[in-house]
Amino acid sequence: MSREEFYEVSPADFFYRNKDIAGFSNPARALYSTVRELVENAFDACELYRIPPEIFVRISYEDSETSEGVGVYVVRVVDNGSGIPARHIPNSFAQVFYGSKYRLRQSRGTFGLGGTMAILYGQITTNNAVHVLSSTGTPAIHHYELMIDIQRNRPLILKHKTYRNERKWHGTVIELSMDGDYLRAGPKILEYFKQTAVVTPYANLTFIDPKGRMYRFERITSELPPPPTETKPHPYGSDVETVKRMASTTTCKNMRCFMTTHFHRVGPRIAERFLESADILPTRRPTKLSNEEVVKLVRQMKQFSDFRPPTADCLSPLGENLLRAGITKELNPEFVSVKPRNPSVYSGYPFIVEVGVAYGGEIPRTGDISLYRFANRIPLLYDEASDVSWDAAHNEVNWKHYRVDISDAPLAVFVHICSTKIPYRSVGKEFIADIPEIKREIVNGVRDAARELSIFLSRRQAIEVEKRRLDIFEKFLPKIAKFSSEIAERKEPPDIGHLLKSVMKYGPETDSNSDED
Amino acid sequence: MSREEFYEVSPADFFYRNKDIAGFSNPARALYSTVRELVENAFDACELYRIPPEIFVRISYEDSETSEGVGVYVVRVVDNGSGIPARHIPNSFAQVFYGSKYRLRQSRGTFGLGGTMAILYGQITTNNAVHVLSSTGTPAIHHYELMIDIQRNRPLILKHKTYRNERKWHGTVIELSMDGDYLRAGPKILEYFKQTAVVTPYANLTFIDPKGRMYRFERITSELPPPPTETKPHPYGSDVETVKRMASTTTCKNMRCFMTTHFHRVGPRIAERFLESADILPTRRPTKLSNEEVVKLVRQMKQFSDFRPPTADCLSPLGENLLRAGITKELNPEFVSVKPRNPSVYSGYPFIVEVGVAYGGEIPRTGDISLYRFANRIPLLYDEASDVSWDAAHNEVNWKHYRVDISDAPLAVFVHICSTKIPYRSVGKEFIADIPEIKREIVNGVRDAARELSIFLSRRQAIEVEKRRLDIFEKFLPKIAKFSSEIAERKEPPDIGHLLKSVMKYGPETDSNSDED
Repeated sequence: MSREEFYEVSPADFFYRNKDIAGFSNPARALYSTVRELVENAFDACELYRIPPEIFVRISYEDSETSEGVGVYVVRVVDNGSGIPARHIPNSFAQVFYGSKYRLRQSRGTFGLGGTMAILYGQITTNNAVHVLSSTGTPAIHHYELMIDIQRNRPLILKHKTYRNERKWHGTVIELSMDGDYLRAGPKILEYFKQTAVVTPYANLTFIDPKGRMYRFERITSELPPPPTETKPHPYGSDVETVKRMASTTTCKNMRCFMTTHFHRVGPRIAERFLESADILPTRRPTKLSNEEVVKLVRQMKQFSDFRPPTADCLSPLGENLLRAGITKELNPEFVSVKPRNPSVYSGYPFIVEVGVAYGGEIPRTGDISLYRFANRIPLLYDEASDVSWDAAHNEVNWKHYRVDISDAPLAVFVHICSTKIPYRSVGKEFIADIPEIKREIVNGVRDAARELSIFLSRRQAIEVEKRRLDIFEKFLPKIAKFSSEIAERKEPPDIGHLLKSVMKYGPETDSNSDED
Repeated sequence: MSREEFYEVSPADFFYRNKDIAGFSNPARALYSTVRELVENAFDACELYRIPPEIFVRISYEDSETSEGVGVYVVRVVDNGSGIPARHIPNSFAQVFYGSKYRLRQSRGTFGLGGTMAILYGQITTNNAVHVLSSTGTPAIHHYELMIDIQRNRPLILKHKTYRNERKWHGTVIELSMDGDYLRAGPKILEYFKQTAVVTPYANLTFIDPKGRMYRFERITSELPPPPTETKPHPYGSDVETVKRMASTTTCKNMRCFMTTHFHRVGPRIAERFLESADILPTRRPTKLSNEEVVKLVRQMKQFSDFRPPTADCLSPLGENLLRAGITKELNPEFVSVKPRNPSVYSGYPFIVEVGVAYGGEIPRTGDISLYRFANRIPLLYDEASDVSWDAAHNEVNWKHYRVDISDAPLAVFVHICSTKIPYRSVGKEFIADIPEIKREIVNGVRDAARELSIFLSRRQAIEVEKRRLDIFEKFLPKIAKFSSEIAERKEPPDIGHLLKSVMKYGPETDSNSDED
């Protein structure tokens, strides 16, 4: 009775049919996502090779008739990163699920999808090819004109030229045209650049908008943070599939070697004890493990309590000073407290949470917390209410305990999460899943900072109360003195200075230097 | 200078590495998503063939040691739907991006991914095969044991048996084991079944939880809604890729035929006028269109204003009565208003929004609107704050205008969206993108219903004020009458009934029958 037709679609076709889930819902959102994805690839191409980033972005109208709203735009992004080897250019840009990002390493890109989606969106709206120029510093610069064969998920190479690279330039230029809507996307794009600049003070970032206005974010330091490095998986986060793949390709002849070679922080002693607890001989050949043994091994990996936790050496957090400087520069608050948390781990992936709480200054009273979210140095601007940070800051912290009424306070909360694997909940990388371990670190960080805020507010309030009290003394004591003098028929009222001083709790000096006592 | 490794991953491998984005973040969420995806497939298999659904779901512990929390669970889902032809069973269940859901038709499934993700999650946590039994009513029932070759995205058939189908049974049974956490997933799963039952009153749904408790949702009608039908794409929503694909495979010899054959609601007259406006001859061969002509054609499709809007015949909304009955059954409110909107269209896809607003009764005062969201009869339970309905109900409706303080009102808002293509923003189908056309319909529906609520509340308030006024008269008039009688030395106080009546604005009859006047 079935009349259904069944068929297979390619990954490119899948994302073509479901553009919404990759952040390409409409021309405005697509323009924002395109800029963001290309800029993030540019940063990764620089930072992973310790090159101080010089990134140039231009959005222009394809023809002069386009107004500021919906129309055809040309997006050009230039970086001075490592460049892409010529043979990988077509696939990297014009094939979905092809890339270098599928690794256990802190990087902005995670899905290897964003750049290709931008090209795909450009192609289906304008039918134009994308231009890619790149060199890794070899004597040749490669110039490709590419389109995507969406149904087959394969690149179509329309042109391939090479130029002589006399100056040993390395980097990548990408230029594509697409339907966009700068009128609606512009504010988000500017906010994205602004927040990006806060967390990448070692980068030069230039943006030219469609009206030709230039926005320039200059580096304030040329010192790059240590680059993130790749790690092995931690046994705790491993599943049956991972272990089976490793066992089928390992060169190890026995399980002791297998455990110490392929897993993070497993030394010979721990390997032996673990294998004993899993009831598997250290001399067993990994390639001979039965299905049941693999399952037993993986179950035991989750239960064995003596594995050492993952190290966070491979991560590159912002650091307390940088985050504090960023917050101060952005919001000039009266109070700021930054709490970098210790490295922690979820499902075997190491992560570090950095939290900042700021109060007053230029922080707007929006009727809610102003939440700034970063993940591996990417500002996240959409869907904050679905993010673990929003939940943590709203539902797990009782702000009243800290003397803050969030419905009417100039309060900002900053959360930066870095990890070898950010648990995004959407392909568009807008928000982070509610992982208990991550939430706990955010909550503890926010509470620690809020405690300091509470002390600051309580002291400020005490000073205000005291000031009002003194104001009353200052207002009435002279009158009482004058009146008393008149009654006593003295010519001059007595000096009341020492009286006033005696009722002061905080002297004017203590008041203005309150940070130092 | 590049040391990067580049490689391709299969779609199955991609979703294996990024389980979070498909709603499989942790054992609790994975158990919920598994139930949901399998139940939705079961409903689709029935409704598309007008079979009154009989759906049975059981979650049990794999062994008796498992407590209610994290452990290995067995999930079994049985339906009486159309069944799957044997040759498609392995690919449908054990290959990502293979299925029958890639069509312009209202159905619960959209990505052809959920069932396979459930199987994949079961496999990587337990290494067990999935069991699928299915028959389309032919003399054979096919029984497959399947696993997924994740790296190649291909099914592995471990066993294939056939049984004699003497009773011409049709339907599908699927059983898999997986890591789950019923303690945390249970409440969401029950809520999911409860809300599903509200919008499928023509289905029998049985659920047995791990403790053996049975929940049974009986059908209250055997009349199925008309099944959704497939439509052709509307010119307005077409892009270059769609038109190119059609042009390369069409059997039409000229553009007039091409337009009328492949597009929704394009007749010969409109086709001629459109082609003239696009400056393309009606006699031109579709297969000979140049790239530039395709782009011109598509641009003109978006600008030509005389296409007829899509019809919504292909859609299957709930209808006013069903939605009202569902709300009343669920919440027993004092007030309910249901507003089915007229069919509308976004990007060429027809959609219908149905809105309900309810007040009082069993609606809890949560300090916020209780929002119930449905899409193609799927209850959406996660990430409501990122959904277009949340935005519409909170930010586009000024509830104060309607005499409602949402921070302290027993207010519920229901939104059902049905469409040939629901613009989900995540692969896990949790929330819907902010499409302006859809938002407008929701906002208008909510405002219409809120206007009625406002009248109800204002009348109720007037009645309360009046009641207080009458209470005063009732309290004091007899005293005054008695006092006056005493002064006048009359034995009996006068009858004050007519006096009381004369100050009443609403009689007791009008009060209790206020709906009828």
